[in-house]
Amino acid sequence: MSRIAFATDPDGAPLSLISDLSSHTTALEAQPDCALLVGEPSDRGDPLTHPRLTLHATACFIPRDSAAHPALRAHYLAQRPKAKLYIDFADFRLVRFDVRLALLNGGFGRAYKLTAEDLNATP
Amino acid sequence: MSRIAFATDPDGAPLSLISDLSSHTTALEAQPDCALLVGEPSDRGDPLTHPRLTLHATACFIPRDSAAHPALRAHYLAQRPKAKLYIDFADFRLVRFDVRLALLNGGFGRAYKLTAEDLNATP
Repeated sequence: MSRIAFATDPDGAPLSLISDLSSHTTALEAQPDCALLVGEPSDRGDPLTHPRLTLHATACFIPRDSAAHPALRAHYLAQRPKAKLYIDFADFRLVRFDVRLALLNGGFGRAYKLTAEDLNATP
Repeated sequence: MSRIAFATDPDGAPLSLISDLSSHTTALEAQPDCALLVGEPSDRGDPLTHPRLTLHATACFIPRDSAAHPALRAHYLAQRPKAKLYIDFADFRLVRFDVRLALLNGGFGRAYKLTAEDLNATP
């Protein structure tokens, strides 16, 4: 369980930049099925009353020499400009998370199960 | 991956109060080996530069009718007094996390592996 950088790809899928030196990279290579927790508590009040979203996903590493890499790299840097300092380090890789299911907890007693379709739906 | 209440037992082990209605309780019953992430980012700056601790642990549910329960219940309420509103609900259970290993990330490029002994050491 780790805190990682969070951005999105052009389709809205979670996108991160992680180092081969981290234990979560080793774990995701061994087992790409994973879960992400999104949503920080605010300064005030009980964090359990603040909304958060659990995403059940499959991690997909984006090879640096793949056709998709340049556009995703640019898209990531547009959202996380400070990452330009390390995005080209040999040990850093972009990883996209393909979401299968989501659990929205809107605070005490308000939990909902969402599908990938719910998340992609435009209002 | 969920946000849960965090307290400690008298020996310093992580202690939480979780509901049978939550998916993490179901998951921990099926597989008690788990990981906890401790440490919230502050308001300012990149969250990845702020320290956080990953704990690899085994979840141990405390039966309500066990000899250990009353003291742990009192200890938990002393730290999380608002939980008195629901700690005695039938679906809520105390769970202690027995830590096997910890990974301390003190910010970019500062990662350390700690043992249970390191965590219990008094200065």
